Amino acid sequence: MHGAPELMAALPSWNDGAAKSAILDFVARVTKEGGPDFVPPAERIAAFDNDGTLWCEYPLQVQVFFALAEVKRLCQQDPSLLQKPAFKAFVEGDLKALTSLPKKDVFEPAFATHAGMTLEEFHANAWRWIRQAEHPKLGRRFITNAYVPQRELLDHLRANGFRTWIVTGGGIEFVRVVAEQLYGIPPEQVVGSSTKMKLEDSGDGMVVRKLPELDSFDDRDEKVVNIALHIGRRPIFAFGNSDGDLAMIRYTLGGAGPRMGWYIHHDDAAREFAYDRDFKLSVFKEGLDRAGEYGIGIVSMKNDWGRVFADDGNGHA
Amino acid sequence: MHGAPELMAALPSWNDGAAKSAILDFVARVTKEGGPDFVPPAERIAAFDNDGTLWCEYPLQVQVFFALAEVKRLCQQDPSLLQKPAFKAFVEGDLKALTSLPKKDVFEPAFATHAGMTLEEFHANAWRWIRQAEHPKLGRRFITNAYVPQRELLDHLRANGFRTWIVTGGGIEFVRVVAEQLYGIPPEQVVGSSTKMKLEDSGDGMVVRKLPELDSFDDRDEKVVNIALHIGRRPIFAFGNSDGDLAMIRYTLGGAGPRMGWYIHHDDAAREFAYDRDFKLSVFKEGLDRAGEYGIGIVSMKNDWGRVFADDGNGHA
Repeated sequence: MHGAPELMAALPSWNDGAAKSAILDFVARVTKEGGPDFVPPAERIAAFDNDGTLWCEYPLQVQVFFALAEVKRLCQQDPSLLQKPAFKAFVEGDLKALTSLPKKDVFEPAFATHAGMTLEEFHANAWRWIRQAEHPKLGRRFITNAYVPQRELLDHLRANGFRTWIVTGGGIEFVRVVAEQLYGIPPEQVVGSSTKMKLEDSGDGMVVRKLPELDSFDDRDEKVVNIALHIGRRPIFAFGNSDGDLAMIRYTLGGAGPRMGWYIHHDDAAREFAYDRDFKLSVFKEGLDRAGEYGIGIVSMKNDWGRVFADDGNGHA
Repeated sequence: MHGAPELMAALPSWNDGAAKSAILDFVARVTKEGGPDFVPPAERIAAFDNDGTLWCEYPLQVQVFFALAEVKRLCQQDPSLLQKPAFKAFVEGDLKALTSLPKKDVFEPAFATHAGMTLEEFHANAWRWIRQAEHPKLGRRFITNAYVPQRELLDHLRANGFRTWIVTGGGIEFVRVVAEQLYGIPPEQVVGSSTKMKLEDSGDGMVVRKLPELDSFDDRDEKVVNIALHIGRRPIFAFGNSDGDLAMIRYTLGGAGPRMGWYIHHDDAAREFAYDRDFKLSVFKEGLDRAGEYGIGIVSMKNDWGRVFADDGNGHA
């Protein structure tokens, strides 16, 4: 059968089952020229959330750990910052206080840690940290915590003419530092939260400097607005893991023609973590409860993925 | 000599001369693996202004003519709009009054003509107009006024691994309507002025609606800020035609490694128009006077282009 060998070889870290079959079938249908579901390559846009969808976000998003390290450094320089609850909670490592604050407040220290830097300085600073920083529970570096099945899915989509985008609540510049290496996604296909910026003519070359003011908090409805701004087309495939991704997935499913939307469900305490509706920084309630009604598929990390991380020692590595 | 046949065939509508040679040489150098000026494909970003750089902007930008037609329609619906000088000048066709207003004011009616529409409605409305609207002086449709030498340059850059972007002061959604057909540039590689937007859950599918509020006026320094936001890398090649493009070109030239920046000079009264510093909507003073000092090359439309439009009747069509 035409294409069958490639199909058999695709997504090797996904267990055979309904989710894998549905994804492979969708990609086969939209790429079949002359078929009823054919989608021209230009319109094959796939949008992925990052934290919890492409890499581990538990017990806190990677950028929060980065901010924690940076905020400690900043508060040593300027102790008055400790009067802000989120800064105080960061420095004291008070995860309970941190997770009780609004998500937007929690990101404030994260933004503070790069305000005033040029883009080049921020990239260098973030890379210096992330290339060696370790996850507190998994006992290995954060950059080894990308999900292997998702990298395979991104590769499979791209091999079939899709353009793959990250649409993240995380900082756009932070995610750009790792997206190419971890996911094969170039900087221009990363959409995320951003600070305002300004151009400075420093005399020996112009630089862009980040300002201590939020430009866009890329979560919920804002993800769709930023998709419109950056991509300019409605995606036909979307993947998320929380209510913050629900608008993006429903927007994806709301257009004409073949479409597909997925949630990854973190139900794998053995290989990763098991959490959903009670995880403050990534609420998953409406999306979980109404996925069926909205036509969103649920991928079970435990059942649908034969492997989670590159080195999770389950015999596949 | 390696690659010589392709080089001879590239840019056929450019006259042999210093500009053509410099461009072909630059592309050859940055793509020569192992050479001292090699640039990895991921970093081969080229940024082009649109109005006056990729298509004719004289006597007014195409989007202004679109706004003129739309504003007439709107003012018939709501005559109170005529109290605003820019609206009044639009409807009366008073180009003198219009060009005496700040550029930002002139764009206000343009934005007013798509506020309240969904993205799909705006695209359909703009396409309905532009597919048939004619230039007032050139006697042919606006969509035939793209510059053939620039389309060849875009193709040549892409054939050599560049990604080509438009960074325009015009409306991002307006330019997206024509960019793929005229220049082979997909919507996601168009950066421009934008209105704020919001997501609406209309019940039978979510839509993005444009709001009557400016989000970004993509001119001068803001072009660089938007390059940082959308592209996330410093371009290595830039092309403009006015002071509005100067920051973008200087930013491009300000990085390390091989870089190239160009201005097109409108000095061709016979085939297009001759204008520069006195054209209100596209001031070209500092850029023209200091191009040499900044290391920016000047392309003369009259001398460097053997052909301007696809049907300019100079024997090449």
